[in-house]
Amino acid sequence: MRSRKPSARSPRSDHGPPRAGYLLGLDLGATKVAAIAVDGSGRPLAPPVYVRHANDGPTSVLRRVAQAARVSMPEGWSRPRAVGLSIAAQVDARTGLVHFAPNLRWRRVPAGARLARALGQPVRVVNDGRAGAYAEWRRGAGAGCDDVFVLMMGTGIGGSAVVGGRLLEGGTNAAGEVGHLPIVSGGRPCHCPGAGCFEAYVGGWGIASRARDAVRADPVAGRALVARAGSLRRLSAETVFAADRAGDPVAHRLVRETERYFRDGVVGVANAFNPSRFVIAGGLAAGHPAFVRIAARSIRDRCQPPAARAIVRPARFGPLAPAIGAALYAATPSR
Amino acid sequence: MRSRKPSARSPRSDHGPPRAGYLLGLDLGATKVAAIAVDGSGRPLAPPVYVRHANDGPTSVLRRVAQAARVSMPEGWSRPRAVGLSIAAQVDARTGLVHFAPNLRWRRVPAGARLARALGQPVRVVNDGRAGAYAEWRRGAGAGCDDVFVLMMGTGIGGSAVVGGRLLEGGTNAAGEVGHLPIVSGGRPCHCPGAGCFEAYVGGWGIASRARDAVRADPVAGRALVARAGSLRRLSAETVFAADRAGDPVAHRLVRETERYFRDGVVGVANAFNPSRFVIAGGLAAGHPAFVRIAARSIRDRCQPPAARAIVRPARFGPLAPAIGAALYAATPSR
Repeated sequence: MRSRKPSARSPRSDHGPPRAGYLLGLDLGATKVAAIAVDGSGRPLAPPVYVRHANDGPTSVLRRVAQAARVSMPEGWSRPRAVGLSIAAQVDARTGLVHFAPNLRWRRVPAGARLARALGQPVRVVNDGRAGAYAEWRRGAGAGCDDVFVLMMGTGIGGSAVVGGRLLEGGTNAAGEVGHLPIVSGGRPCHCPGAGCFEAYVGGWGIASRARDAVRADPVAGRALVARAGSLRRLSAETVFAADRAGDPVAHRLVRETERYFRDGVVGVANAFNPSRFVIAGGLAAGHPAFVRIAARSIRDRCQPPAARAIVRPARFGPLAPAIGAALYAATPSR
Repeated sequence: MRSRKPSARSPRSDHGPPRAGYLLGLDLGATKVAAIAVDGSGRPLAPPVYVRHANDGPTSVLRRVAQAARVSMPEGWSRPRAVGLSIAAQVDARTGLVHFAPNLRWRRVPAGARLARALGQPVRVVNDGRAGAYAEWRRGAGAGCDDVFVLMMGTGIGGSAVVGGRLLEGGTNAAGEVGHLPIVSGGRPCHCPGAGCFEAYVGGWGIASRARDAVRADPVAGRALVARAGSLRRLSAETVFAADRAGDPVAHRLVRETERYFRDGVVGVANAFNPSRFVIAGGLAAGHPAFVRIAARSIRDRCQPPAARAIVRPARFGPLAPAIGAALYAATPSR
């Protein structure tokens, strides 16, 4: 991790763009690409561009990514100073090689090199969780701190740790994957080979799965919840949170239980990584703002004393955090 | 964490010791000091020296530490090249300030500066868990790896993570304290403000506490276990492991349960820190070697794929690891 290749920078443009040195961030998901031009502080310079893709293999998908990149460069502007690509994958951030992207079903795709050829300039590739965390650390809710944990709450639960002013990678680029901390010994099966994992209880899919079990256990009590979702199969974490706000008793119980499991996970993460700033990010967190308050209280009251001082903040950047973070990451000299 | 003061080195001796540039490691515990002279590879150059102290405050205890240091320098040898002090405390490794040492009941003691005055040469102070991990990483079971986790199993459970070639400190020098990962949501109370913690189940005190509960729940079945310990109060983890080896059925059940909880903790640690090498250290682990095999299998079978490749090794250094690690740490230029 220590020695990295010289920074992937584009040569300075001769004619200069209207906004000197803007950055381009791309976020490749399972169904679409988001692209956004930002300044060095991560502020968008134009509305984001979204381009759908058919998830039909690297060649076709990377062509769509390149299209998104071109479309997102404001008309009349020259090349961006740096281009970053965020992707939900195990990535070697040094080489731009995508080891494994489960949602895209890619294995060992040199995405950085291929996109660089298509765009005619270097592209840095970074895991989407890392990218989002990087945005929060450098320009968001963790700015100014050397020890930051960014918990990413969505369908699954991920995370990234900055310790001593460095974003951790780990032996196989998976450090911070706290969604797979077992919090219930012998508990619910997870999507990973383990059981009882944090995300099997508190991730979006875990909440939905627990909700379906609750309805199956008591169909009469769960009837309103299913009606709200449309069907048992479509019962989602979002439905559960909305039903709780509307006073549904089954949803109420599920959300309180979720909050209890959330406490265990947050306390474990804060004890293990000892951040000064704890950032709660991701769509699931945005949909249930109480998570921030609960995390703050749990860390203060239940962590061991040195870890109990972490300050909790909601993320600054929303769904575009990975794209913005990839752009900022690409603009940073390699470490 | 990034900028540290210039290295605390002793001036080169003019007349030169019989062993040029040996290192002196000190480990201050709640009842005694261990001192050992080692070479640059951590190999002892003389038998260790143990000096008891009365735990009667910094002045008196540090005087005993200085005595231990002097006694441990082989006769006729000159000054050591570097002196390191390991201590079970929250320590600022830059300044040698002991923030809080619960067992010694010290708060804000400038142990490094005071011992340096007594010995007439600089002393680096480091947390005992960090020191032991440092020894394993640089010269022990983790040597040659950039991503190492050292799990320290004793009365409590601690740990230290090396990620990307750097020993993590964290916001308040507590990174790696994985003994306080909740693994049983709503579980047993811990010595920390939390509950359900890894060490409340698998630490020496946690095993003893679970054993006492098992005996209380079924005194007839537990009679042999109590007899072996001498009394319920003296029932320890060591007794439980020994009774299991002797075929005691209550101990057998307790040890199998302990192993199950151990799996949860180990899997969580490996998923969160993503080490390439996972080192199992500490007296409790030494007393139950099966922990190494169980950790290896759990990581392989239950971690998420990127983390599942970690290689598990027993620690190289035994109870002297903290003293040896402090010596090696003191000899390393400050980072």
